[in-house]
Order: sequence, then structure tokens, then C-alpha cells
Amino acid sequence: MAKTTAPRTTAATNAATTAAATTIAKQQAGRPASGDGRVRAVIDAVLPNVDCGRFAVKRIAGDSVRVRAHCFTDGHDVLRVMLLWRDEDQPQMHEVPMQPLGNDVWAAEFVPPVPGRYRYSVSAWVDAFQSWRHEMARRVDAADIRLASRIGAAEIAAIAERARGADKKTLSRWAKDLESAAADVALDVPSLKSLALNEELTLLAANYPDRTLATQFPLELPLVADRERARFSTWYELFPRSASPVEGKHGTFRDVEARLPAIAAMGFDVLYFPPIHPIGREQRKGPNNALGAGPGDVGSPWAIGAAEGGHKSILAELGTAADFRRLLARAREAGLEIALDIAFQCAPDHPYVKAHPSWFRRRPDGSVQYAENPPKKYQDIYPFNFETEDWRALWAELKSVIDHWIGEGVKIFRVDNPHTKPFAFWEWAIGEIRRSHPEVIFLAEAFTRPKVMHRLAKLGFSQSYTYFTWRNNKSELVDYFTELSSSPGIDYFRPNVWPNTPDILHEQLQRGEPAMFMSRLVLAATLSANYGIYGPAFELREHVPREPGSEEYLNSEKYQLRTWNHADPQSLAPFVARVNRIRHDNVALQADTSLRFLTIDNDQLVAYCKRSDDGSNVIVTVVNLDPHNVQSGWLSLDPGQIGVEPSHWFQMHDLLSNQRFLWQGGRHFVQLNPHVVPAHIFVVRRRLRDERDFDYFL
Amino acid sequence: MAKTTAPRTTAATNAATTAAATTIAKQQAGRPASGDGRVRAVIDAVLPNVDCGRFAVKRIAGDSVRVRAHCFTDGHDVLRVMLLWRDEDQPQMHEVPMQPLGNDVWAAEFVPPVPGRYRYSVSAWVDAFQSWRHEMARRVDAADIRLASRIGAAEIAAIAERARGADKKTLSRWAKDLESAAADVALDVPSLKSLALNEELTLLAANYPDRTLATQFPLELPLVADRERARFSTWYELFPRSASPVEGKHGTFRDVEARLPAIAAMGFDVLYFPPIHPIGREQRKGPNNALGAGPGDVGSPWAIGAAEGGHKSILAELGTAADFRRLLARAREAGLEIALDIAFQCAPDHPYVKAHPSWFRRRPDGSVQYAENPPKKYQDIYPFNFETEDWRALWAELKSVIDHWIGEGVKIFRVDNPHTKPFAFWEWAIGEIRRSHPEVIFLAEAFTRPKVMHRLAKLGFSQSYTYFTWRNNKSELVDYFTELSSSPGIDYFRPNVWPNTPDILHEQLQRGEPAMFMSRLVLAATLSANYGIYGPAFELREHVPREPGSEEYLNSEKYQLRTWNHADPQSLAPFVARVNRIRHDNVALQADTSLRFLTIDNDQLVAYCKRSDDGSNVIVTVVNLDPHNVQSGWLSLDPGQIGVEPSHWFQMHDLLSNQRFLWQGGRHFVQLNPHVVPAHIFVVRRRLRDERDFDYFL
Repeated sequence: MAKTTAPRTTAATNAATTAAATTIAKQQAGRPASGDGRVRAVIDAVLPNVDCGRFAVKRIAGDSVRVRAHCFTDGHDVLRVMLLWRDEDQPQMHEVPMQPLGNDVWAAEFVPPVPGRYRYSVSAWVDAFQSWRHEMARRVDAADIRLASRIGAAEIAAIAERARGADKKTLSRWAKDLESAAADVALDVPSLKSLALNEELTLLAANYPDRTLATQFPLELPLVADRERARFSTWYELFPRSASPVEGKHGTFRDVEARLPAIAAMGFDVLYFPPIHPIGREQRKGPNNALGAGPGDVGSPWAIGAAEGGHKSILAELGTAADFRRLLARAREAGLEIALDIAFQCAPDHPYVKAHPSWFRRRPDGSVQYAENPPKKYQDIYPFNFETEDWRALWAELKSVIDHWIGEGVKIFRVDNPHTKPFAFWEWAIGEIRRSHPEVIFLAEAFTRPKVMHRLAKLGFSQSYTYFTWRNNKSELVDYFTELSSSPGIDYFRPNVWPNTPDILHEQLQRGEPAMFMSRLVLAATLSANYGIYGPAFELREHVPREPGSEEYLNSEKYQLRTWNHADPQSLAPFVARVNRIRHDNVALQADTSLRFLTIDNDQLVAYCKRSDDGSNVIVTVVNLDPHNVQSGWLSLDPGQIGVEPSHWFQMHDLLSNQRFLWQGGRHFVQLNPHVVPAHIFVVRRRLRDERDFDYFL
Repeated sequence: MAKTTAPRTTAATNAATTAAATTIAKQQAGRPASGDGRVRAVIDAVLPNVDCGRFAVKRIAGDSVRVRAHCFTDGHDVLRVMLLWRDEDQPQMHEVPMQPLGNDVWAAEFVPPVPGRYRYSVSAWVDAFQSWRHEMARRVDAADIRLASRIGAAEIAAIAERARGADKKTLSRWAKDLESAAADVALDVPSLKSLALNEELTLLAANYPDRTLATQFPLELPLVADRERARFSTWYELFPRSASPVEGKHGTFRDVEARLPAIAAMGFDVLYFPPIHPIGREQRKGPNNALGAGPGDVGSPWAIGAAEGGHKSILAELGTAADFRRLLARAREAGLEIALDIAFQCAPDHPYVKAHPSWFRRRPDGSVQYAENPPKKYQDIYPFNFETEDWRALWAELKSVIDHWIGEGVKIFRVDNPHTKPFAFWEWAIGEIRRSHPEVIFLAEAFTRPKVMHRLAKLGFSQSYTYFTWRNNKSELVDYFTELSSSPGIDYFRPNVWPNTPDILHEQLQRGEPAMFMSRLVLAATLSANYGIYGPAFELREHVPREPGSEEYLNSEKYQLRTWNHADPQSLAPFVARVNRIRHDNVALQADTSLRFLTIDNDQLVAYCKRSDDGSNVIVTVVNLDPHNVQSGWLSLDPGQIGVEPSHWFQMHDLLSNQRFLWQGGRHFVQLNPHVVPAHIFVVRRRLRDERDFDYFL
């Protein structure tokens, strides 16, 4: 395992762990942070942090990171607080003075310039000179002021000691002047006081604080800065083998190339493929997951590996490695990134099975243990045995699979069922990979229990699948997305929501109503900055389940070739394009932190608001959840929430219908006909003349 | 500073701090907790904890501590989770198996037997045998079951290896039997399955798990167990010098002895004195805080120290050290503990000023810097200079003051303005003292900003003064006490609420209405398990402010002797006694965690509920905040909340008026006449025959 870092031995880590416990124990014993009892500043909390720094906070390179800390000291002295931050690989710290927000909360911001890992911490100290000045300003008694001036002169002299160059001179002069002025009984008190409080010289003195007794927050909190796509991405999933326009013909990468313009025109920026590797022949599944496969059956792409190769190989029918690289380039030209599927499991004829028998469990009859969840069996899949003695080699090999595709130019990976592999493996693999490739993005396909999904997000996955598909009525949507846009998850869990996937055809879509497809699309696209659809099944409204009550598609692409009629006049492609265009043009929809739900007095209507950080772009979305009936209601809209003066008129421009409404005040009537468009996506225009008013459908 | 531990040097602590940061960094690098990649259990959170273990969680010795943890593993394997806890001074851990509550939350309890410091942590591992059994139970295919039986037999054999004595024999026998049964084609599958799943043997096997790959939570979280009085105490503050029945005569400890029966009869258990030390003569204050003191003026007890002694001495007028010890003994006999005031500041003639000039700031004119908050001056008080080079000796001496009074038998201290001394000093001093005297209780008198008060509670103060005195209307009371009884404060901040203090005569009390005194007393006594009054001013309804708009008492005992007419027929003493008797008889009122406010449709009425941990004792309190008018309203009372069946009748027994009401269902009419009693304190009686029904006023 040459280039990878091996997990350290038990002894070593335990030592470090004990050290942590010991530090905390020591701190409890009441030793002041720096060991010197004269250290008086307290830093009680530094936010954001994930589990006290056990995991990294996630942000975006180029976006400002706002850090807050609770800082104070005993008595009435004046505190100064400094934010410290650095690139994790660079020793030297940058400093930003923190400003008090009241209630002992201090804040400052920094901008991680490029994707990578960063550290931040806080330092605070009592400023004797500022404290003196604070009291001096409030003194009235003349004798007091003379005496205090002499104290101040001494303070300033001490500061001059620390000062450099011209400042040193200026400050020593000030100290002397104040000293003699204090002694000069002829001098009137106001003049003495104004000399002591000289603004300009005070600012100069502030550059040379005495930080020898500063409190240092004991931890450097970790932060991961991703590239923007981790925060804002629009995914399109397709099966390359169904990309052929010719009925029954196996699709190729070249066929996909032909689709690129249409997919780009729909406004997607990530094109995700299920596994593109050789598919096992042993125990291959037939159409609709039938046990035995016929001669012509193509099998499931997730049954990875055959004699000709495994996770680093490409299914011959799709094309060559060269074809794949060519597709990557063409996609890039079209503004699309290719995302691959990482599914760490093997078909029975995967080369690993022979080459590394110790990576799989054997049964007493000598056979290899296939995947099962009794009484269910998946004989076409062999799971890895992560408890093998040879786990180091297994980890290294699996990581090398990802490294291989990064080498080919892939920078986004959708990971299949990460929650069925050890968490420690992912934390190690993602950590190592992002150290050398901080631009790589990992999406966790873990449809499982909440705490498991959160752990995967904490340990390094950039984005996570969610329960969106099963959150359908108003209260479910409000509760779930309120949770997703709130602490603690907001600092590490980035939702990527999907109205459908090859595994999930939700009952709601099984009637095929366009209104339902449209409303689910608008919800996904406007509630979450990261979303995707499984197409062409989505825009062509594929909706027949394998059997009643099933969420599986009938004749699913997972087990057979399909041919799609992209020319279908009923296709939702234009609607998808419009929605994605709106996302692209409105930064408010490109992040999740600002989401706020609005009150509307109809349970079939859900309304919410998103705004850009600078407040210049505000989007209000209203969706009719009822695919059959016109629904209307009164929307409560606090003008302040959308940055409008209560008395002012403002224009609500529906970017879907291009209708414009002139509104004023806090309550507004809204009506949506699902047979036309089941949603409004309003941009709030405060100036009625707006160059963007007319730039749709041109 | 012989017996005290000096704070460690900067270098050393920084090393430890860095070690902590390093551990976290290492953990981020993704190394599995134990360093072995086969460790698959995850412990994502252990609760309760205060700032990830930086500070200790507070509980009571003898009370059960409930620990929860978020634990899970990859895949479907069965997890086992163990709570570990130990006395901080004992290396060996006690273990309690944790039970799953669903949603990956596991819980267990332990009881710290005696006051002291404890540590707790969690260990979790994947149980191969239980996982095998879980699958076996669901298997239906006969061939599968035979094969799985052989796997199980091997697992059981491995367990037998670890087993001891008879168990070893029993388990090996089971392994052999299962092995041969699996091979016996004649044996029917149900019998084979039942042998494999044998309940009794499974329980036996569970005693010998393989924990070599267990995950250990990296920290041992600290917990402080106090004695019960830290959770439930009833304080009475008085000035011993005003205890004399003779007008103008300086009261003595002997006079206080004479008051003990009356104070005990009112149901108090802590008797707290302002400082009892010699009072400075220089700059002594006269009555009503007048600048110059007359010859007969006694000065402020907080101006501590004179030629004859300081913080370890007793004011001669009060009595001798022997008198004080005698008073402690008498108080103990009466069920009262004496609490002393710790006020770390000096009168100008305190012996420290001469003996330790470096402990005080000098002004350029050579004078000692007195306390000031410009333009205010407090010439009779010299604050310590905690930034002195000699801080180690200062810390040691101040701690020795507390040690001295502990030596005299005092175990409760009310600390005056702790927030004007360094936080690190208190954390060190309280930590050191409680190491040798875990029974000692510290009350922080810090009427300051929220985060400062919380920090003092975190670093070790057992109880804290609150804003109760200034929380007067319904919404203020509901918001504040909801916060006080919620996380995170509930784990470390114990409120001790006071309707009045020698420093605070709230405007509400300045009209002297009995109803207002009574309602404030009932609120304090039932909202908070720890409360106190400053008497006799309270029960005698002292209510004249020094001047309009002031919260200072006119002719305050802080600056002069007072004589009190305990025989006043208007005295509230009997009412105070009744309220304290109710607290004493009802465990629901002896803790704060169960407080829940109830809905009542009148802003002048506030209602809330408290229940004992076992639910056997439920108290519902309703208070009329309007001292002038009868107020009535409808109280919403969810029967489940008070542990009664919705359909059942239950009796609400008002322990104040001894009235009994028969209630049923969720809405009830309540009416309170402030001119009679402004509150109900109901105990909920589910059985109408209740031996306690008649035990009042007998």
C-alpha cells in the first residue's frame, strides 16, 4: 500500500486519545488555559464547530466564514479578541480582529481562498490601556484626572517600548507630554483630559497591545472548504447503455455524447452514471430482477466485475477508456461534469474473488458468502469482508479505485450504500483523497437511519441523499426542510434531493400526472440548492411500478436496455430547463442556509422564501401539492423578511409564468391551477424598472 | 503555598493542549478510534456532557445518573454497548450494559454513591454471535439453516474458549452438539433451529463477548456528585448584629442562638450570615451609606478587616471563635447549617494591606487604589490586584481563608461578586477544596451577564443567584424558568432564587402588600428547589426604599443595627412555614428538571407542574400575580402530564388552604383572591383515600 497512509497502531492512537482526556482532566483541575494565573480573558465557546472539533465544519472556498465566540473577563476591564485562521498545511496564522455584538458574543469573518482544509481559533486578552481609557473618559474629579493621567502616561510609555520606528517616537512623546501635562497645575482639566484621550494616538497605540497574558482557545477547529459545486449542483442521472436511439441496441459513450446538448440545455451541470464496469455473468439477474438471466440479458451494472475486469475497467459495450476520456472532454465543453458511481461489492466472477480470497467470507461448504438479509438473498453480489486480517490491503485497493478514476478526470463520485461499509474506512479514504484532491466531491447514497446519515456527512461526504422522496404533505416538507436548514446539520450535512431514482418510483408519481411531476421538481429545485433527477424517466414521466405497492420501476433500466422517445411532445424537458434556468439566475436558490417557510392558510399550498447573503436577491416559492384541484390561499409575507419597506409597493415576478404582480403589505392572495403550472417562483423586485424584467423567453 | 497545587507552567499546559488538538487532528485524518480498521462500532455522542467534557456535569450522590449515547455500526450486525463509570480517584471501571431506545440511542444509569468526582464513558462492539443468531432466527431455507448452524457452532466454540469453569464445558458441549446436529441429515430442521437458538445457552454465551475490536469513546466525561442540599435547600439570611431583642444593642452569636428555634420552625435549613469579620475603621460608611461614619456607627460588614484581624477573624462584638463553634453546633441540632459569606476585598486597615503591599495596586501618589467604577468611588474597599507577580501566594492565601472556615465546621459558602475575580482562580480554588471536601457547597452571588453567570456555574459553583427578582410578569417568569430548566444549563447551573436580598428591595415589594410578598414567596419556593429570603425584612414586610426609584432599603442593616419585632401579628412567618413544610413533604418540589408550565387563559395567573422522578408525587401551582384583584381563568391540564387516566376523577388538594377539589378531564376553572391567599399549591391525589389527606394542621 505504497502511497497511502496506513492507519496507526492501537497503542499510538490510544496514547493520543489519553492525552486528550488528560488535557481535559487538567483543565478541570482548574489550571488556567495558559498556566499563568494572571490570564484573565475567558473564551467560552467558538462557533461554528462540529462535536467540539472532532469533525470539520463545511464551507465553500471564496465564501465568507463567520466565526463567533463568547468572550469576557472578570470586572469591567476592556477585552480585545482576535480570530486566528490558517491553511491546515501552512503553519502561519492570519489574524482578524473580532467585534463585539453584545451579550459577550464576538464575531469576525474570513474567506478560505481555495478548496482545502483550514483551522481556526480565537485569542483574547485584557487591554490595560483601553481599560484605563474607558475609565478616564468617565472621570469628572480633577484630582482623579491628574492622577489617572500619570497612570496613563506610564501605560503609554510601556506601549512605546513595544512600538517600532516612527510610532515608537510618537508614542514616547505622547507619554512624556501626558506626564508633564498631568504635573502642570496651570493646565486646565479639559485640555489634560483631551490630551489623554487623543483619538489618533489611541488608534496608533492599539497596534502594539501586550498579548503576553492572552488566552488561547485550546483547539484549532477544523474546516473543510469545498468548491462551489458542493453547495450548488444540478444532477442528471442516466444509464449510458440506454442512450442509443435504436431500439434494442446497447448504448455507448458516443450515444451519450449525442445527448449532451439536450442535457446541458435542460440546465444540468452534473451527469451521473450508474457503474460502467464489466458486469458479472455468474448469477446474473434478468429483466425485472428475475433470478435467471437469458442469453441476451445485460444484467445489473451494480453486479460489478467479470473475467475481463473489475472496478477500474469499463464495460466493452460502452466503449474504451479513450472513449470515456473523450466523453469527459465533450461533457466539460458542454458545461457538464461526469459523476461516477462507487459501489464496493463484487459479482461472483469479479477478479478480486480469485485474487484476494481473504477479502470475502467463506461458508463451511467452501462457497463464498453472498449478500443476504434473511430470508432475502442476493446471490449475484459478494460483499467485502472488512473484518479480514488483510484489511489494510483491502482499504488501500478500494481507495486506489477512486484514485484511478480521479486520474481519468472524474471529480465527483456518488457512493452506493456507504453505510454498509465501515465508517472508519470512509473517513480515512475521503480524508486521504481530499488531501491531494480537495476539489473532489462525494455524494453519500445512504437511505438509512438519521444518525447514520449524519455520521457519514460528518466524516467527510460532501453531499447526502435525503428522505425528500418520502416527504410529501405540507407538514412533512416544512418539518424536514426546517431541520435540514438548521443547526447542527447545517454545518456539515448538505442535502441533495431527488424526486425519483432508479430505485425509487414514489407512489405519488405512479399516476403520472404532469402536475405532480412538476410540483415535485419545483420543490426539489427550490428547497435544496443541490438536487437531481433520474432521467429520461423523469421528464418522460415514466410511472408504472413493477407491481402494485412497489417503488420499483416496471422494466427497470437496472436490469435491461431501454429506448427513450426524447421527441415526446409531452416531455417535461422545457419545464425542467426553465426551473434550472431560474436556479442559475438567482443566487438565493444556490444555498440552503436562508430557507424560511411562510404562513399560508391552505394545507395544499406550501410557501417559502430564500435570500442571497447580501439580501439583493429574494425568491418566494409557492407550490400547490394537489395535482387535481385549483388551490388558493392567503400568504403572510413579512415585508422585512423580503427586504421591503412595509409601506412600499413591490413587484412579485413569477419566473415560471412570467406574470408580474404588484404587492404591498403583509397578506396576499395566491391561486394555483395544477392543470397549468402548480407553482409560482417569484423573484421580489423592489425597483420596478429592472433590466432583468424581460430577459425570459427571448 | 505548601498544601495547595500550584498552576502548572505555560510550557507544560500548552503541551497538553496541543496534544488535545493533535488527537482531534489525528481523528480527522480518519484513523479509526482504536487504530484497527476492523473496529466497526461508532459512538457518535455521549450525553450529558458540558462542552465535550471540558467541565463536569452536576448531579447528586444517591440520585441515578442517566447516560445516553448514539451508537450504531455499518450494515445489519448486532451491537452491544456498555456504560463505563468510575470514581475519579479509583482506576477501576464499573460496567452497566446499555439498552437501545430506538433511533440508535442507547441508555443506562448509574448511581454515584457519595459526593465526589466521577468519570464515565461508553464502549461498543459488534457482536458476531448475536448477529449470527439474529439472521438464523429469520432463515427459512433448510440447506441455509444447516450451513448456518455450522457457522454458529464455530462461533460458539470460540466463545467457549473465552468462557471459564462450568460455562466453558457447557458451551463447548453446545458447539459440538450443534456441529453434529447440522451434519445429521436425519434431524428435522425445526429441531436443529431450536437447538441453534437455545435461549438459556444464548444468555450464557452473552457473558463472554469478544471485545478485542470494541470502540472506546475517546473521553472519560467528568461528573460532580454533590450532596442533596446542593439540589434542595431553603435559605434564611440574617445579620447577626441585628439579632438582639434590645433596641440599639449590638447583636451576638448568642442572640442568634435564641432565634434558631423560630427560624427552624419556619422550615429553613441554611442560615446565611453576611461577613462576620472585623470591620474597617478607615473610610467607614455611616447609616444609609453616608460617606463619614459617626463614632457609634458599625459600618458595612463587607468592608472586611481592621488592625485586630481579617478574613479569618471574628468581629469581637459578635463573640469569640468558641461562641461561633457553639452556634454551629446549636444550629446543627436545630437542623440548620450555617453558611458564611466569602467577600475577597479589604478595608483600608485590613492587615493584608501592610503585610502584602504587592497584592494591591498603588497609585502614582503612593496611595492604594480603592474600588471604583468612575465616576462612582468606594473608598472603603480595596480590591485585590490579581495581576500581581505574587499571584500564586495570593491565590493560596485566599483559598486558605475558605479552608480555615471549613476547619471551623462551615460547609456552605455564599461568594460575594465572584465575577470580579479571575475565573481561573475560582476553578482552581473550588476544584482543590472539593477534592478534599466534596461536601462543600458554593453559591455564586453574580448578578451579571448571562454568559458570565453560566461560566461560573460551569467552573464549579454549586448554586447560582438568578434574575428572578426582576422577572415579574407572566411571560418573564415562563421564559426565564423554562430556560433555567432546559439544556444546556440544566446540567450545571443550579438556580437559587431570592424574592429579596439586603441589596435588592424590588419595586414590586415597595408597596408592602402581603399578597405581593406571598406570591413572590410561593413563586420562589415552588419554581426553584433552591431558594432563600433575606429576613426578618421579608416576613415582616420591610418595604421602604432609601429613596424613590432605589432598590436599597431605607436604614439598611448593611450600614446600621436594626431591631426586629418578631411578635408582629402581621408577620408572614406562619405562611413561610406552611410553604416550606409543603416543600419538605413533596419531593416534586425538591428538584428543577421536571418543571413544565401549564396553559391558563389569564395573563395575571401563572400555572406550572412539577413531578417526582417516579411520578408518584405531582404538584400543580397556580399563582395570582395581581395583588389587588381576584383573578380567575381556565387551566388546561393534560391528564397524562399529571399521571391520571383521562377518564378518571382525581383530587386536587390545595396544601395552602387545605381545600380539596374533585377534577376530571383537561379544563378546569381556577379563581384566586389575593386578599386571602394569592396561590394554590395542589398535590394531585389519584386515590381518593390517601393517608396524607388529613395530616395538615394536626
